[in-house]
Amino acid sequence: MKVFAYGIRDDEVPALKSWQEENPTVEVDYTNEVLTADTVALAKGANSVVTLQLDPYGADVLEGLADLGIKNLSLRNVGTETIDFEAAKRLGFNLSNVPVYSPNAIAEHAMIQLSRLLRRTKPMDAKVAKHDLRWAPTIGREVRMQTVGVIGTGNIGRKAINILKGFGAKVIAYDKFPNKELQEEGLYVDTLDELFAQADAISLHVPGVPENVHLVNEESLAKMKDGVVIVNTSRGNLIDTDAAIAALDSGKISDLALDVYEGEVGIFEHDWSHEKLPDEKLADLIARDNVLITPHVAFYTTKAIHEMVYQSMSAALAFANGQTPDNALEY
Amino acid sequence: MKVFAYGIRDDEVPALKSWQEENPTVEVDYTNEVLTADTVALAKGANSVVTLQLDPYGADVLEGLADLGIKNLSLRNVGTETIDFEAAKRLGFNLSNVPVYSPNAIAEHAMIQLSRLLRRTKPMDAKVAKHDLRWAPTIGREVRMQTVGVIGTGNIGRKAINILKGFGAKVIAYDKFPNKELQEEGLYVDTLDELFAQADAISLHVPGVPENVHLVNEESLAKMKDGVVIVNTSRGNLIDTDAAIAALDSGKISDLALDVYEGEVGIFEHDWSHEKLPDEKLADLIARDNVLITPHVAFYTTKAIHEMVYQSMSAALAFANGQTPDNALEY
Repeated sequence: MKVFAYGIRDDEVPALKSWQEENPTVEVDYTNEVLTADTVALAKGANSVVTLQLDPYGADVLEGLADLGIKNLSLRNVGTETIDFEAAKRLGFNLSNVPVYSPNAIAEHAMIQLSRLLRRTKPMDAKVAKHDLRWAPTIGREVRMQTVGVIGTGNIGRKAINILKGFGAKVIAYDKFPNKELQEEGLYVDTLDELFAQADAISLHVPGVPENVHLVNEESLAKMKDGVVIVNTSRGNLIDTDAAIAALDSGKISDLALDVYEGEVGIFEHDWSHEKLPDEKLADLIARDNVLITPHVAFYTTKAIHEMVYQSMSAALAFANGQTPDNALEY
Repeated sequence: MKVFAYGIRDDEVPALKSWQEENPTVEVDYTNEVLTADTVALAKGANSVVTLQLDPYGADVLEGLADLGIKNLSLRNVGTETIDFEAAKRLGFNLSNVPVYSPNAIAEHAMIQLSRLLRRTKPMDAKVAKHDLRWAPTIGREVRMQTVGVIGTGNIGRKAINILKGFGAKVIAYDKFPNKELQEEGLYVDTLDELFAQADAISLHVPGVPENVHLVNEESLAKMKDGVVIVNTSRGNLIDTDAAIAALDSGKISDLALDVYEGEVGIFEHDWSHEKLPDEKLADLIARDNVLITPHVAFYTTKAIHEMVYQSMSAALAFANGQTPDNALEY
């Protein structure tokens, strides 16, 4: 039995080797190259292929694999929108993804960034870096003194709430589909407007579906407290960037953390340090003292990488053994 | 009734004004100058004086106040070692301090820095600042995956433990004087050596008394896990700086956060950005990717400042009214 993995980054190698040790009867081989019509031959002899990439899995790629007798394809990530499902169906592919790898990774990142904004660590770090070791006037606020509004109480939002409770913050929450336990705790407000009115800080944990696009816009910002703190680790399209920048300028938003950004495609995951960053709004945000930008890294922990590698490799093996893993895609 | 406050910083003014509004019958005046023999005359006409400074409260200062008929002195901070108690006793001074202003401020700072070290926010922020928006290889670790050892379970250590529980970390603790509740939860290990052996990360919350000096030294470091994360927000003398630097060099310590530093007196609270920082070890630590230095700011939150101002002003008023406030010093 052989599994071949494409696009393996250095940080994935330890998890891959560890999986291999736990499955000594399986032959494992890998490349750091992504899966394309040009690289498909590398998988020759494998029963299943594991992959993670931004490049599409088009008909040419799938046909190339099928020509080698490989009809098992396991993605190491969530997103499946780059698969040519029509071709996959025609060729009889078994497909899987990793729908949940670590909600904690994202919730932790959101709450760390939130607490950092309150504590003003960016200006304080900048002072220390240039050897200005005075504490005033860079005064912080305590998490426990805040009313934090969590919008979206799925896996990630609920983990964020647990962290906030540990800090002793007052938590209020909103979700169209309330969680029963949180409901019994009385954490929900009835409307987003109530949350906007009460929250000193807001963390977004809803999907970027059409109804949530620009959830934070000029109108909703007007309903929020002056000096509100906003954290978005969910989807870039939840925030109207122009409205956020105007609110930062006016002081309506006192601090902002973004791990996702409306215009991130083609911008994040790239090194612009030797060329002009072609997004002036993002450059403006990055330069601000009261804004923390991270390039969609909230998911990026050793635990998450471990899960992505393990779950995809185990699905690939299950397919090779004629079984249907839990994370098989129905399409 | 009049209270005069010395050394009032800009960040204290809102709390002072707020106290004044709540106590409209009291006349409040203040200066940003510290209390010395030269400035003592500013307090003329006051019944009590409120102060916070590094300069000593010597016999000359106390006699100067007594000459003005002022024998009530309320400190806005904890430390009283700069008071000439002999002179104070001879002159019949009523003294107070603010023994507890916000254990949360320090516990939150410790846990924020701990989580930041795990998440490698310093190198990630540095990448983003120069527009390198690639996430790899700056991979983070999740707090919940760690066994965190909390040394010292007083007010601050216990708050830190609550935060860690919110994150879902495994907490182990050590204290010479165990807390009953934590004991019932089974959080304590029996010896420091056990804690050293098991902890992925260690946060120090014990006082800098002689028996704790260099608690972290070459010997104890040898007992810790390779790649241990250490956070010190307690007292600088708990860590042998040379041993810590050697352990950072060898990789024994993977990440270190210090809000206190053995050699901090005369170094912290000063702007060295236009002159050479006269402590090369500190400059070396500040420059490292895996070290977070803050200049004794863990206490420095709006809540703590509020408490320091309110508790000292209320004590000053109580003294002026012939009462003994809870935070009066027995000396």
